[in-house]
Amino acid sequence: MIERYQTPEMKTLFQEKSRFEYMLIVEKTVAEIQAKKGLIPQAAAASIAKKSKINLARIYEIENQTKHDVIAFVSQIAESVGEHGKYVHFGLTSSDVLDTAMSLQIREAFKLILNEVKELKGIIKGLAQKHQKSVCAGRTHGIYAEITTFGFKLMGFLSELSRSEERLIRAQQQFEICKLSGAVGTSSALGLDVEAEVAAKLKLKPEYFATQVVPRDRHAEVFMSLAFTASFLERLAIELRHLQRTEVNEVVEGFDPKQKGSSAMPHKKNPISGENITGLSRLIKGYAWTAMENIPLWHERDISHSSNERIIFGDAFTATHYSLRRMKTLLEKLFVNKGMMKENTYKMGGVLYSSHLLNHLVAKHGLSREEAYRLIQKAAFDLGVNESLGDKILRSKDFKKYFTTAEIKSIFSGERHLNSIQQRIKKYEKNIS
Amino acid sequence: MIERYQTPEMKTLFQEKSRFEYMLIVEKTVAEIQAKKGLIPQAAAASIAKKSKINLARIYEIENQTKHDVIAFVSQIAESVGEHGKYVHFGLTSSDVLDTAMSLQIREAFKLILNEVKELKGIIKGLAQKHQKSVCAGRTHGIYAEITTFGFKLMGFLSELSRSEERLIRAQQQFEICKLSGAVGTSSALGLDVEAEVAAKLKLKPEYFATQVVPRDRHAEVFMSLAFTASFLERLAIELRHLQRTEVNEVVEGFDPKQKGSSAMPHKKNPISGENITGLSRLIKGYAWTAMENIPLWHERDISHSSNERIIFGDAFTATHYSLRRMKTLLEKLFVNKGMMKENTYKMGGVLYSSHLLNHLVAKHGLSREEAYRLIQKAAFDLGVNESLGDKILRSKDFKKYFTTAEIKSIFSGERHLNSIQQRIKKYEKNIS
Amino acid sequence: MIERYQTPEMKTLFQEKSRFEYMLIVEKTVAEIQAKKGLIPQAAAASIAKKSKINLARIYEIENQTKHDVIAFVSQIAESVGEHGKYVHFGLTSSDVLDTAMSLQIREAFKLILNEVKELKGIIKGLAQKHQKSVCAGRTHGIYAEITTFGFKLMGFLSELSRSEERLIRAQQQFEICKLSGAVGTSSALGLDVEAEVAAKLKLKPEYFATQVVPRDRHAEVFMSLAFTASFLERLAIELRHLQRTEVNEVVEGFDPKQKGSSAMPHKKNPISGENITGLSRLIKGYAWTAMENIPLWHERDISHSSNERIIFGDAFTATHYSLRRMKTLLEKLFVNKGMMKENTYKMGGVLYSSHLLNHLVAKHGLSREEAYRLIQKAAFDLGVNESLGDKILRSKDFKKYFTTAEIKSIFSGERHLNSIQQRIKKYEKNIS
Amino acid sequence: MIERYQTPEMKTLFQEKSRFEYMLIVEKTVAEIQAKKGLIPQAAAASIAKKSKINLARIYEIENQTKHDVIAFVSQIAESVGEHGKYVHFGLTSSDVLDTAMSLQIREAFKLILNEVKELKGIIKGLAQKHQKSVCAGRTHGIYAEITTFGFKLMGFLSELSRSEERLIRAQQQFEICKLSGAVGTSSALGLDVEAEVAAKLKLKPEYFATQVVPRDRHAEVFMSLAFTASFLERLAIELRHLQRTEVNEVVEGFDPKQKGSSAMPHKKNPISGENITGLSRLIKGYAWTAMENIPLWHERDISHSSNERIIFGDAFTATHYSLRRMKTLLEKLFVNKGMMKENTYKMGGVLYSSHLLNHLVAKHGLSREEAYRLIQKAAFDLGVNESLGDKILRSKDFKKYFTTAEIKSIFSGERHLNSIQQRIKKYEKNIS
Repeated sequence: MIERYQTPEMKTLFQEKSRFEYMLIVEKTVAEIQAKKGLIPQAAAASIAKKSKINLARIYEIENQTKHDVIAFVSQIAESVGEHGKYVHFGLTSSDVLDTAMSLQIREAFKLILNEVKELKGIIKGLAQKHQKSVCAGRTHGIYAEITTFGFKLMGFLSELSRSEERLIRAQQQFEICKLSGAVGTSSALGLDVEAEVAAKLKLKPEYFATQVVPRDRHAEVFMSLAFTASFLERLAIELRHLQRTEVNEVVEGFDPKQKGSSAMPHKKNPISGENITGLSRLIKGYAWTAMENIPLWHERDISHSSNERIIFGDAFTATHYSLRRMKTLLEKLFVNKGMMKENTYKMGGVLYSSHLLNHLVAKHGLSREEAYRLIQKAAFDLGVNESLGDKILRSKDFKKYFTTAEIKSIFSGERHLNSIQQRIKKYEKNIS
Repeated sequence: MIERYQTPEMKTLFQEKSRFEYMLIVEKTVAEIQAKKGLIPQAAAASIAKKSKINLARIYEIENQTKHDVIAFVSQIAESVGEHGKYVHFGLTSSDVLDTAMSLQIREAFKLILNEVKELKGIIKGLAQKHQKSVCAGRTHGIYAEITTFGFKLMGFLSELSRSEERLIRAQQQFEICKLSGAVGTSSALGLDVEAEVAAKLKLKPEYFATQVVPRDRHAEVFMSLAFTASFLERLAIELRHLQRTEVNEVVEGFDPKQKGSSAMPHKKNPISGENITGLSRLIKGYAWTAMENIPLWHERDISHSSNERIIFGDAFTATHYSLRRMKTLLEKLFVNKGMMKENTYKMGGVLYSSHLLNHLVAKHGLSREEAYRLIQKAAFDLGVNESLGDKILRSKDFKKYFTTAEIKSIFSGERHLNSIQQRIKKYEKNIS
Repeated sequence: MIERYQTPEMKTLFQEKSRFEYMLIVEKTVAEIQAKKGLIPQAAAASIAKKSKINLARIYEIENQTKHDVIAFVSQIAESVGEHGKYVHFGLTSSDVLDTAMSLQIREAFKLILNEVKELKGIIKGLAQKHQKSVCAGRTHGIYAEITTFGFKLMGFLSELSRSEERLIRAQQQFEICKLSGAVGTSSALGLDVEAEVAAKLKLKPEYFATQVVPRDRHAEVFMSLAFTASFLERLAIELRHLQRTEVNEVVEGFDPKQKGSSAMPHKKNPISGENITGLSRLIKGYAWTAMENIPLWHERDISHSSNERIIFGDAFTATHYSLRRMKTLLEKLFVNKGMMKENTYKMGGVLYSSHLLNHLVAKHGLSREEAYRLIQKAAFDLGVNESLGDKILRSKDFKKYFTTAEIKSIFSGERHLNSIQQRIKKYEKNIS
Repeated sequence: MIERYQTPEMKTLFQEKSRFEYMLIVEKTVAEIQAKKGLIPQAAAASIAKKSKINLARIYEIENQTKHDVIAFVSQIAESVGEHGKYVHFGLTSSDVLDTAMSLQIREAFKLILNEVKELKGIIKGLAQKHQKSVCAGRTHGIYAEITTFGFKLMGFLSELSRSEERLIRAQQQFEICKLSGAVGTSSALGLDVEAEVAAKLKLKPEYFATQVVPRDRHAEVFMSLAFTASFLERLAIELRHLQRTEVNEVVEGFDPKQKGSSAMPHKKNPISGENITGLSRLIKGYAWTAMENIPLWHERDISHSSNERIIFGDAFTATHYSLRRMKTLLEKLFVNKGMMKENTYKMGGVLYSSHLLNHLVAKHGLSREEAYRLIQKAAFDLGVNESLGDKILRSKDFKKYFTTAEIKSIFSGERHLNSIQQRIKKYEKNIS
């Protein structure tokens, strides 16, 4: 049960009453436009606007008899309106109200998600700036490759999150749909103008050619945008979980920033937030798969989508909202062990820097690439346990003509990488914010 | 949110308290065996057995401080036990209790599911017997192929359900696991004998080689068994939805049996139960996919499975239980329109029976297959609108030497198929019950 | 094995040699820009441009020794270039070439897909125009709801295809990526300018912040766009398969248009193209799921994506291309049985038109909705077998004051729906083309 | 395209000709039994047995005209048989031959898979025995938890593989199906006895109640069994990839055993086999998902399953076979760095052993758990960089009364764990072999 992950906002948004509230907005707006066009009395629209009021208990009572929740809703609203109640839902089909109300509800859900995304982007960007020069090992296949910085890693995550954000925004926009075209989408009951004006009023676009419902590829795109966001969170969570491994120990979850100096045993902390987020990503992707299977409905619609949509909309948005928020907290409280990051780059004698020794020999001293490679490789292979490649080179007769102490120091500081990293960030950071 | 589909039994079984009750059973049983083996005082085990009592509010209060639900549970239980409280959870790791309790809880969940399956099998079998001779069109590609009976169709569904039942039983059996092997599964704290005896007492088998947890392939098999059951329900639901199409009109959902004669417009009924079940099948398969992704945990376990398992276990069992029960009701109240089934077989002049005309020509009159085919095809192709193939043949000079009126009548009664169908059922029905 | 579905274009595009050809384009372009910037001799770039030539056999020979396909490729190309061969792949990492070449290859794949989509849109639009007034039953839950036209149905499919097309275009655009940022994406070897100019030359955009590879969310979006297209095809295929059912018989696959009058037994045709497309959609969605799991690679990349990408890219594009093309042929050769469509609307006495009888009573004669409903319902319920609701009403004393023969005729012609359908198409068709 | 992963055995088994060979076995066996029962002449069965011969080119030639591969196959076989050719395929439907032949083909595929599984189990068991006492860190959440041994880890994997093997065997057994019940499964053409005797001869069981085809839940179970096997391989591959990380460095892929001493830079090796297997697991799971969607076919069958089955059967078995074989090689050539495993357990001063220090204080000296915990925690927190917890304790005045040098040595050797691990293996290893 999703309760465990309900944020207050999502709990409110997806509670049963909320759904009826969005349905009521649709009913009121339709009445307003119908009155404006002289299709129903002005007084009726006014009454509906003023007197209509949701009474959940009464809706359930009627539903118990009619076994139809929209009819129950309409009847209860009509009761609350009184005399003009008969003008409620005039010319509409259940799906007109349900699908249009869903557009409104999901727009709010996206707002909540996008707000978290925006804040998360800010946090990642802040961390990236702070750690732009925090040198650490770059790893491919889990194996040391070349050095990078923690800030540069984060710029990659920020880029991916920006792409996820775009997918969310597009999914939201294509879901801002007003569908008032009636039984089989032919507008045989309600005029095109009413639909168009209601749509404009609600800041939605008409579904040009609906079946009885808004086609479910739109819904699937909503879920896929959540699945991409969850996958982004999963990749970041896995990165952090890797960095927190006992043997790596470069970050620690859940540290109060003030606390960082005082604890000698950061390794005891488990990356449970990262793990939690990883597991929820699998859940959200499962919901997306369900949504994909809802696309090929029969003819002008069958209602097979409905039974699972009652679950997956609320649950997927809730799980995504929770995950985003938890990732924010995770990053805000993350202890980044800059010292350990640097220290790790010197593991195995500092072989991570070997490509720069090689470049130095080629660029400054004109050695062939092959010759330079041979020299460096020999030095690296002959390294003793706990011996440093930098020190060895400085002491070696093969190398002493090629390197000064200052040069070795510069190379093993990762300066060159720092430069190219900063250039890259400077050139491109504006493109992703 | 899954509440909408909660059966009373599943609601009870997956409520928060229930989980703690199964955990308490594990703690009590461990204490009992430890006392028996002299590892803790007899009086302690007796106190734990008698005095331990779950207090949800207090558990939450403690969890609020400790942020660890198992610790909170153990503390609260210890409080309830009093003096001997320190012997609660003696030598155990959280996962020992959680995973073993989950085995107990899921065993109950399977019992509920298997009970519904058994009843559903009875209902299908009853319907199959009742309609063993209810002739109807067999369709391949959605196109008429040869005749069959509605009862025979149902025997196919019964067979598939029996296979699903076997998968459920196997999934249950492989999940009856006791895991008390401690931190990384090495039994360094609790002896092998305690685990073995607790397992025996709880009618479980020890996990021979666990990590810190029971490996998650077992859990995935549980979900796959539910997904197969859901897929069975989906196939049956789709069959019934097809048969209820306006143009087919052979079955109608939701009819009170007494009511069948009174309604002249059965076509107005929508197959909403079938559609509901179809949509829930997609949901259940989505959960199964999430569970498959939980298998490759890191090392001796990471806890990424936990965040989604808190949702998917309860929700998948609940949705499956609900679907099975809804299918039972659907079938119990299904109006089977035998007359329409028979009538439909005569559509397009009765071409559905053409293979039997052909067989008659070959078997009784020795025509070659090619010659017989040519004759029948010509007759079928020349059929006028609303003309019957049987009548045409009786009136045709080409055919009159080959067929008597009685023979035509017999062929168009589907007798031959009825015979082979009944033989098949007689021979094999015992194998699937 | 996907061979069975290989279109000639996709076979050529995804053959092994093709991949190397795109890699060679990247290598040549890099050399060209490097020469322009004075990083390598002009003569070297000229040699590479003129002499480089792929020799597959030789590549495999080298790969057999080195076990590394990119090294083998570079070595063979260097051999073909001769003296200046050492300037091939200067400053590059394998993934720089692989991922940039993949962008080029997949851009071609998208062109092929989008070309089919465009043609398919044309065919659907043509059919939609032709059948704008071909009245047929609209069905919800598989049950008759209200009338629509076959052309209007197709406008709905056209809309969905337009949305799929947008998704394809966006997926293509976000995949037009040049990645030349080296080992861990830090550009430590090759300057930002070279990357930017190569990108411009190849009409790609630089990956601002890559890891060692282009992040795999981009790839997943490619597959999701194919999955949406496949799901569209599946929905359309299922619609047509439904309409071809023996009992419905409104369309028939695989008919040569000239042939339509000649066959008296259209029901014998199976909708095998529709079924084929349905099954391939499931396959394509499976590939998309694989691609989603590739997103969370470890650190600066692990290479787990590679083993499945070697299969899923070619196979998913191939299956989608084949499906699109097969759907085109299906629609081009589709026999649309307008007569049967119309005839089916009169099934069950023409109850499909009852809402219009009701509207007539309310709008023209001022009956209350309740009163009108009661009258119509009674007439419908009392209909005899094979009796027509229109005839009954004309003969009924209850109704004779309300309806003229002309009015009944007009109602049962579906005129009102035809009007609203044509208005809707007129208003919105421009928005989706 | 799957070619890249084709093992010679799977290439042979899934080549086009192979399919026809299994179909021919079915045709021959049916003829043999029909002759035995006097349904066709003895001479006909004899001719079919002796003369029938597959001619692929001729089959394709005929298929080109008839557009039906089974008809083409039957015609070509009939041609090769000559005079008695008309008795080929007597009384059969295409699906009878296709589905029964598929049972035979997939039985062979399972044999190949199960053979690899058996060999892989042997290799894992051998490694587990060899490393039963190779102490290493047990990790939960990626964080050090308690010590274990590499051999014990492998016993857990062996257990899971045994469960996968059982799933494969069950999937194979439930797929050993003979389906000769004709058009809609009613046996209206061929007698039950022929089916039963053919089944017995081919060591298959009749499908008691088929539709026109063997129901597709059986096929889905085949794919799920492969997906479970792939998931097992993925978990093992991920374990090994983790252990090969530069910072962990406990195993190295692809090392020739003789080579291990000579290389000073094992960290340069990438775990590409593990990564390859990880990626193929995602692919195989994707195929399984496709297969799950094939279950709910319409009525007596639609043929939507066929288009994807032509791909997923061969490709999924091939990818699984390849992955199993690659894992075998990976393990056979795996360099297990026992020294590093042990060394890693002492990281962070050896805090991994702290629970044993605590146990010693409680068990031998009667300290309360709280008191013992406090003492150990203080010692651990006060550890200097590179200081060892064992040394510190021996030098500490707080502890000197509680520990002898020998006791400390014993604790930090992990003896206690080694004992419990060996007991566990001894007790349970027989249950999983």
